[in-house]
Amino acid sequence: MPKPSERNQQVLLDSRPTGWVTPENFRLVEGELPVPDEGQVLVRNRWLSLDPYMRGRISDAKSYAQGVAPGDVMVGGTVGEVVASRSERLAVGDTVLAATGWQRFATINAAHALRIDASEVPAQAYLGVLGMPGITAWTGLMDICQPKAGETLVVDAASGAVGGVVGQLGKHLGCRMVGIAGGSRKCAYVVDTLGFDACVDHRAPDFAEKLAQALPDGIDCLFENVGGEIFERLLTLMRPFSRIALCGMVSDFNREPHACRTLRAILVQRIRLQGFIVSDKMETWPAIRNSLRELLIGGKLRYRETIAEGLASAPAAFVGMLRGENFGKQLVRID
Amino acid sequence: MPKPSERNQQVLLDSRPTGWVTPENFRLVEGELPVPDEGQVLVRNRWLSLDPYMRGRISDAKSYAQGVAPGDVMVGGTVGEVVASRSERLAVGDTVLAATGWQRFATINAAHALRIDASEVPAQAYLGVLGMPGITAWTGLMDICQPKAGETLVVDAASGAVGGVVGQLGKHLGCRMVGIAGGSRKCAYVVDTLGFDACVDHRAPDFAEKLAQALPDGIDCLFENVGGEIFERLLTLMRPFSRIALCGMVSDFNREPHACRTLRAILVQRIRLQGFIVSDKMETWPAIRNSLRELLIGGKLRYRETIAEGLASAPAAFVGMLRGENFGKQLVRID
Repeated sequence: MPKPSERNQQVLLDSRPTGWVTPENFRLVEGELPVPDEGQVLVRNRWLSLDPYMRGRISDAKSYAQGVAPGDVMVGGTVGEVVASRSERLAVGDTVLAATGWQRFATINAAHALRIDASEVPAQAYLGVLGMPGITAWTGLMDICQPKAGETLVVDAASGAVGGVVGQLGKHLGCRMVGIAGGSRKCAYVVDTLGFDACVDHRAPDFAEKLAQALPDGIDCLFENVGGEIFERLLTLMRPFSRIALCGMVSDFNREPHACRTLRAILVQRIRLQGFIVSDKMETWPAIRNSLRELLIGGKLRYRETIAEGLASAPAAFVGMLRGENFGKQLVRID
Repeated sequence: MPKPSERNQQVLLDSRPTGWVTPENFRLVEGELPVPDEGQVLVRNRWLSLDPYMRGRISDAKSYAQGVAPGDVMVGGTVGEVVASRSERLAVGDTVLAATGWQRFATINAAHALRIDASEVPAQAYLGVLGMPGITAWTGLMDICQPKAGETLVVDAASGAVGGVVGQLGKHLGCRMVGIAGGSRKCAYVVDTLGFDACVDHRAPDFAEKLAQALPDGIDCLFENVGGEIFERLLTLMRPFSRIALCGMVSDFNREPHACRTLRAILVQRIRLQGFIVSDKMETWPAIRNSLRELLIGGKLRYRETIAEGLASAPAAFVGMLRGENFGKQLVRID
């Protein structure tokens, strides 16, 4: 049970961003601990996941999920510990994965929390390679890209929580993997640690030439996280009958959408381009998570984390992540 | 056999267009009749098909088929009569469908000509509803859009050779059909004769509002022939899990490609967008043609033709078609 003196901390959306989001769009508040109703548990969160999709939730623009209004607690995936239970499903001491948002304590229906086994893997992996990002990578790759051994697969944001899993799964499938990442340090990690065959730095002045050099035979499968100018250029390198899983367009979050001039490639190359949202197929998650867990325990799935300390640091860490300042999975450790 | 006095007529590409194609990009030449080799037939063409894809063939830009170089005979589908045969496959008097190009006489390997039965349908229908355009409509609709009864299906260039078949097939499948066409005369034909539920005039100043009014619940399937600003707007009306068959982008043929600002819809609505070229799956053509032929003979497939008289009129008719001045299938009757 929490100590009587403990209070809750929450990060609320204070105002909708116009253009770039800033830490000032958020507000940290303190208050009483919530009290679980029948069927609920009280969770003390230890880890908060920060993910690009959250930028869409705080926008006025139409998106695929209900938005966060000013005054609401920010949404987000969390890993924490059950500290009080009014459900037979979960016991005090259980470690659970849930979507309780940017707060230290939360009550949640026990049915909406997943008890996780953190004995062989770090608990916070359930927010990264074993969580939404890892399952997103698996789903877009297997359901939409459907790569065959020997094909060339490209992923951008390749050092990120999603892109890193895409690349390692692609290698396991026998693909030639080409990543795109921002800066030479990330590119070195993508090749040396994640095992990609090549990685192109999109911040380099000769990005276009380097990209073409890395893809002399074009692209069979593209796992697209970024959108914008990078996607526009990648379209021109697609091979006949190639496939694109459109997972994110993070480059368009903080500006007017980029206007794409290369759509004709979709016709000329008979490309199949498909948008997807991983939460549309929750029924597939347990099996995918198990497969990823086996890879992770077997040492076949590497990842990096950037950890911000304390809930108060979440807004700045979130803004930094949208600017690509994180390196690997962005987490907040909640004290 | 052709009379000894007869000479061949051919339309050659004279120069590549820059921007809008003009009749001056072509040149009519006369010459000797070609002589068939062993295995070939000499065909006297009666009908030439003019189709938007030809604009791609005369462009320097990368496309899905080999281009026509200045000095070459223009490519195109033709229906004609065998007037001399050095093959057992075809006899003098046979009516054949072939891709012999913009010329009065041509030799062709008998294996590359299809003997057609023009007893119950007009021979030139094999260039339209029973030919490449009709099979294109069938393929994009059935393979990519995969509409279900009750869904809303949109096609642009709805009065054209492809769009008209898309719409009628969609109605047979139980869909709500909304067409887009240029001008009130074409729109009236699309609704009154082809049986669409609605048609919106893209030349009207209030096109955007009219389009939204005609699609209060959005679009489940889009058969896209036009591209450009129309496609950009249609993207914003797509429903979750909708499908787009990208068949053509005729609006981009004669200018710099339109820059599309609405790609985010593909992600948000989980759209599947797929380009296709009907000639990739020639093995499917006979069965599709038979199905279309049965619909046509049964009075369930209507169409219109715009006929230009004489091979010399082909260049102007081609330019007019690209500007949307034709009404239904554009043909040239070869005298």
